[in-house]
Amino acid sequence: MTEQARELAREKIRQAKNVLKEKNVELWLTFVRESSAMRDPALEMLAGFDSTWISAFLVPAEGESRAIIGSLEVPAAEDADTFERIVGYEKSIRAPFLDYLKERDPKTIAINYSLDANLADGLTHGMYLKLMELLEGTPYAERLVSSEEIVATLRGRKSDEELRRIKKAIEITEGLFDEVEGFIEPGKTEREIAAFLHKRVDDMGLETAWGRSGCPAVFTGPDTAGAHAEPTDRRVERGHILNMDFGVKFEGYCSDMQRTWYVLEEGETEAPPEVERGFQTLLESIERAFAAVKPGAQGCEVDDAARNFLIANNYPEYPHGLGHQVGRVAHDGGAGLFPRWERYGALPFIPLEERQVFTIEPRLPVEKRGTVTMEEMIVITADGAEYLSHPQKALRYIR
Amino acid sequence: MTEQARELAREKIRQAKNVLKEKNVELWLTFVRESSAMRDPALEMLAGFDSTWISAFLVPAEGESRAIIGSLEVPAAEDADTFERIVGYEKSIRAPFLDYLKERDPKTIAINYSLDANLADGLTHGMYLKLMELLEGTPYAERLVSSEEIVATLRGRKSDEELRRIKKAIEITEGLFDEVEGFIEPGKTEREIAAFLHKRVDDMGLETAWGRSGCPAVFTGPDTAGAHAEPTDRRVERGHILNMDFGVKFEGYCSDMQRTWYVLEEGETEAPPEVERGFQTLLESIERAFAAVKPGAQGCEVDDAARNFLIANNYPEYPHGLGHQVGRVAHDGGAGLFPRWERYGALPFIPLEERQVFTIEPRLPVEKRGTVTMEEMIVITADGAEYLSHPQKALRYIR
Repeated sequence: MTEQARELAREKIRQAKNVLKEKNVELWLTFVRESSAMRDPALEMLAGFDSTWISAFLVPAEGESRAIIGSLEVPAAEDADTFERIVGYEKSIRAPFLDYLKERDPKTIAINYSLDANLADGLTHGMYLKLMELLEGTPYAERLVSSEEIVATLRGRKSDEELRRIKKAIEITEGLFDEVEGFIEPGKTEREIAAFLHKRVDDMGLETAWGRSGCPAVFTGPDTAGAHAEPTDRRVERGHILNMDFGVKFEGYCSDMQRTWYVLEEGETEAPPEVERGFQTLLESIERAFAAVKPGAQGCEVDDAARNFLIANNYPEYPHGLGHQVGRVAHDGGAGLFPRWERYGALPFIPLEERQVFTIEPRLPVEKRGTVTMEEMIVITADGAEYLSHPQKALRYIR
Repeated sequence: MTEQARELAREKIRQAKNVLKEKNVELWLTFVRESSAMRDPALEMLAGFDSTWISAFLVPAEGESRAIIGSLEVPAAEDADTFERIVGYEKSIRAPFLDYLKERDPKTIAINYSLDANLADGLTHGMYLKLMELLEGTPYAERLVSSEEIVATLRGRKSDEELRRIKKAIEITEGLFDEVEGFIEPGKTEREIAAFLHKRVDDMGLETAWGRSGCPAVFTGPDTAGAHAEPTDRRVERGHILNMDFGVKFEGYCSDMQRTWYVLEEGETEAPPEVERGFQTLLESIERAFAAVKPGAQGCEVDDAARNFLIANNYPEYPHGLGHQVGRVAHDGGAGLFPRWERYGALPFIPLEERQVFTIEPRLPVEKRGTVTMEEMIVITADGAEYLSHPQKALRYIR
């Protein structure tokens, strides 16, 4: 763990104490085990080390943070030096854990589960039952609430340092879009294009922002496999649209962007009208959505702005949400620019906040040509939003 | 996903149907979302692809397996070709999921949570609540049981192909222990020794069996940080014991082994008597544990055999379990060779089964010298066990 990573974790613990006060919660408990197999995403942000045995990461609104962990893991935790106090146990977490609760007697305890926000839902059901077993006969089982709001706030409200890293990840991604444009030509396969980007990412000692096999996703032509699929041996053809979904992780923070190219036919100097119309319509849908973003707005209102504009222009609805938060993971948690579909639960209705980073990523199909997609990244400001990416304002061409 | 990985997943689905019949369970449901952030370990074994949206992976005792997933991820799932039927949805999983249940009307449904076996505990508490919401007003909420036994059986009972991969991982690890022995000398730091092994692992295009920062773990001398810590700048010194915990992942399957060296003083030709006595005592504790392993025995009985022998010889108890299963992860789930400590829940009492792979890894301290640890790997046979590793029978020396 680097000193910078440690400092960021300590900053998050300090920030957490303030958020707890703001939300009127006395204690935040992250309860985990064998985190190397399934890691509560909050743990990476706060602790910076894994725990094998049942562990309690405790952040109170007032007073020192404490990690109660298996004794063999105390040295690693002390080395990480993120929690103010480390307590090791051998045979059972019961005594040190219950002693801590009794000593502080918190009125509300936020625990790490959430119905809708997967990144705040690190408590497994087995561990929940375990916790209930430990708390049996105490008053604390009655005082539990979800830590969803705390985690969402901590992940969402980006510090200056977090924004700096995200901007850098975006800058690198934009540079790589320029580079790969020089590589793409008719006859090249999606897989070859992906390999070009993988090599460049490796050269820079970086990681892709999500699973390498689908990052970049490269789609060329009208019969593409659809989003979330791996690049294939399909070849770039003249007269087709090519789009790409790609991002990198820079010092632990992600970019997530999409760009659209048109592959000119021999003799063509610009795209055919239906492609241009698709591009301009998509661009305007992004601008309309962007204009709807401000603190306090709901994500579903922002989604409406783009979705309704596309429908009004006789394009089909995109089969997904307009945008999601970005941070330590490409699909970061909490509020989203999502439609009111059951799949998204309560997430479309959570008011947006300053310093949250979102994607805006509608899509539309152009018959026989392919799919037009752009994915821009924005940060919410005091009274609106700013683009973090340099929005694609014109079709890019492969000649 | 390679064709070999696909074939292994299909084999596991076939095996699962038999295990379901054996355990008298009609349907196994693995219920997940955003598995790239927190992946139910069963998913890697069965599906071989991630799912972003709420997804239901259904394996019935009779009939075809079905994955109900977000529509955008259908192409990737079809490409993986592990589940017999793939159903995509757009706005909500509710209808296709409940329709499936109604159609089959299963009497028992095993779902992916477990109190004690973390690798069978992939259902988050938020997703459990989501599932309860979906099942409200149906008879199915009353029919849920834990899939712990199914998952533990599937992960535990190794096929010939799985054993082949584990053996290969062990063979590579043993080779690397030999190689690194030539590199270790007084003055080298733990970190340098770890870097040597990392380079060799990279050269071979492999991964370490667990988190790279602690694999290998390298401990030299008496004041080592303890297990589960990262290598430090501590230097190898004459008269000290050095031990190492290391493993690699070969085609998705792990090794997990420990070896002990003594660093000879100038003029010494063998270790001092207290080091040799420690080594011999530890060796005998392993042999006694090995002799206690057979199908039907309980892990705690095997742990007793080693632990009581060390205590009888006036060494302290090792502060952890004697051994754990190994497979797709280094710490694999289910029954363990664990003591009857609360921390281990019910795991020490589950009867052992043929074809399970375990480590045996006691430890003991030698004052002013360091820690003696060996970790061997065994597979359970019809009437006992066989070593998969070549057990360390003598102290290894650094000259």
